Amino acid sequence: MGRSADYSRQRDASAACLDIIGEPWTLLIIRDAFRGLTRFEQWQDSLGLARNVLAARLKHLVANGIFETRLYCERPQRHEYLLTEKGRALRGILLHMVDWGQTYVYQDEKPLIEGFHSCGNRIKPVIYCAHCEQQMLPGDIERHRNPEAKSIAELAKQAMAAE
Amino acid sequence: MGRSADYSRQRDASAACLDIIGEPWTLLIIRDAFRGLTRFEQWQDSLGLARNVLAARLKHLVANGIFETRLYCERPQRHEYLLTEKGRALRGILLHMVDWGQTYVYQDEKPLIEGFHSCGNRIKPVIYCAHCEQQMLPGDIERHRNPEAKSIAELAKQAMAAE
Repeated sequence: MGRSADYSRQRDASAACLDIIGEPWTLLIIRDAFRGLTRFEQWQDSLGLARNVLAARLKHLVANGIFETRLYCERPQRHEYLLTEKGRALRGILLHMVDWGQTYVYQDEKPLIEGFHSCGNRIKPVIYCAHCEQQMLPGDIERHRNPEAKSIAELAKQAMAAE
Repeated sequence: MGRSADYSRQRDASAACLDIIGEPWTLLIIRDAFRGLTRFEQWQDSLGLARNVLAARLKHLVANGIFETRLYCERPQRHEYLLTEKGRALRGILLHMVDWGQTYVYQDEKPLIEGFHSCGNRIKPVIYCAHCEQQMLPGDIERHRNPEAKSIAELAKQAMAAE
């Protein structure tokens, strides 16, 4: 399975994220993991994806530390896939995707699985700053430019050398 | 430019979001729009993308109401691309991607453009519920299943018929 985009020359944190989770279907595999799926066949049922594509996506996500594997059957040997802390940290992206798809595509219609906060209302996330605990409004972001920043490929090389 | 994944049979709000913004490079085009880019050549400089790919992505984003176009030059006729309200609502996804890429890939390194909240700290989003104003923790989500839910393709057909 070839990559569908080469982000390795980008020098950006959001591109570094997409480089790992930007392949087609990957975010839906991770969404299903948040909903409790752990096994190859469960994802096949949920997504209707070709076996080779699903296998390539899972392999890539394990290699990048999003999933860890656990043996659940000795004969034949079968592994299940569990979100790591790094994988669970993708939750904010997915909550915002659900909210956006509900608001702008599903609108008054119900999707197959609908998420509610424990207060009883539909998922409607609002972003606060972890540091000052104030809401982060669009005008509140300042940007610094670091011309000497490393590319994603350079970071990967550096990480390999450190191992 | 063919689509890289067909999500039309999915019946999910997050898949409906990916169906519009899941193509390779699309989220980086939108990221750049949040940083003030509005013109074709600016995106080419920023992303180093083939002209036909960039043109296809922009066309798709205009067709789906993420960008609106504005004429800025009469001869030759040139349009710029501005985020709509629907496009600006993708901000939460991008803020979480930036934070994730910084935390797990860039770590102590600086990316080319680094975002800070106006309180002076690096972007570190925390999700609160818009309704009850409490933080949304992982255990706080409840899911309802709607077996009669429509697929993304059915919703699109319905929207076309209503026009």
